[in-house]
Amino acid sequence: MNFSSTQKAYLAGFLDGDGSIYVRLKPNEDFRYGFQVAPYIVFFQSSKDRKNFEMICALIGVGCLRERNDGMLEYVIQRQHVIKEFLLDISPYLLLKKGQADLMLQILEKKSEVRCKEDFVVLMKLIDCFRELNYSKKRKIHMLTP
Amino acid sequence: MNFSSTQKAYLAGFLDGDGSIYVRLKPNEDFRYGFQVAPYIVFFQSSKDRKNFEMICALIGVGCLRERNDGMLEYVIQRQHVIKEFLLDISPYLLLKKGQADLMLQILEKKSEVRCKEDFVVLMKLIDCFRELNYSKKRKIHMLTP
Repeated sequence: MNFSSTQKAYLAGFLDGDGSIYVRLKPNEDFRYGFQVAPYIVFFQSSKDRKNFEMICALIGVGCLRERNDGMLEYVIQRQHVIKEFLLDISPYLLLKKGQADLMLQILEKKSEVRCKEDFVVLMKLIDCFRELNYSKKRKIHMLTP
Repeated sequence: MNFSSTQKAYLAGFLDGDGSIYVRLKPNEDFRYGFQVAPYIVFFQSSKDRKNFEMICALIGVGCLRERNDGMLEYVIQRQHVIKEFLLDISPYLLLKKGQADLMLQILEKKSEVRCKEDFVVLMKLIDCFRELNYSKKRKIHMLTP
């Protein structure tokens, strides 16, 4: 990524207005602690505005565009090193989602340092903080596999 | 308004993501041609995020914050010279709503030049172009008072 300062500021404004930063904990027995940790940055747009939205996607350049069944477009950044680099770029310009960006960076850091079950519990608690920041109505209690 | 280039770019991104540019034609017999021409720039946010949203409102500084009955906050710019100045500032950075910004500037220009009924009909047709740009489902046929 090689954004100019005004491109970074634009993307920060667009993410504040129309984007989302979150981490999903997906139950998955293939993973050591029973959960897959899946971080996301997502931008939304009505598919009626696909042509213009594709300009923004091309500017970002590091995600995937997909169309949902309800006619909404999602441009999704999922790769963790890309999320990290993108947030470090635009974070200084964020006004609404600064807290989510900082939390995501902290989670990616902790995730790379998990060595035992206790570390993973700390990571899960950090992920739960997104519910507060994103005003999620869903509050799930996640149980670690024994 | 005295925005830096990154502030202009941020506001363009935020408006692209979460804002709206439109003109309402309000039937009103007090006006010469039977309609009030009311231009708007509006930014939306959930009232749960009021504290952060107020930072953006303070940055813009030229509108009014109001809370709707459904719990949404609206920051509204209504004064025409302010809309014009604001759009001239951020328009170079817009990606999604460039068409709406250009149309609004064109309408404000035409509005100041209306001298007769024929001019007003041209103005009304321009205003109708917003329906296409904003994908409005409402299509109204406006009739001029005789």
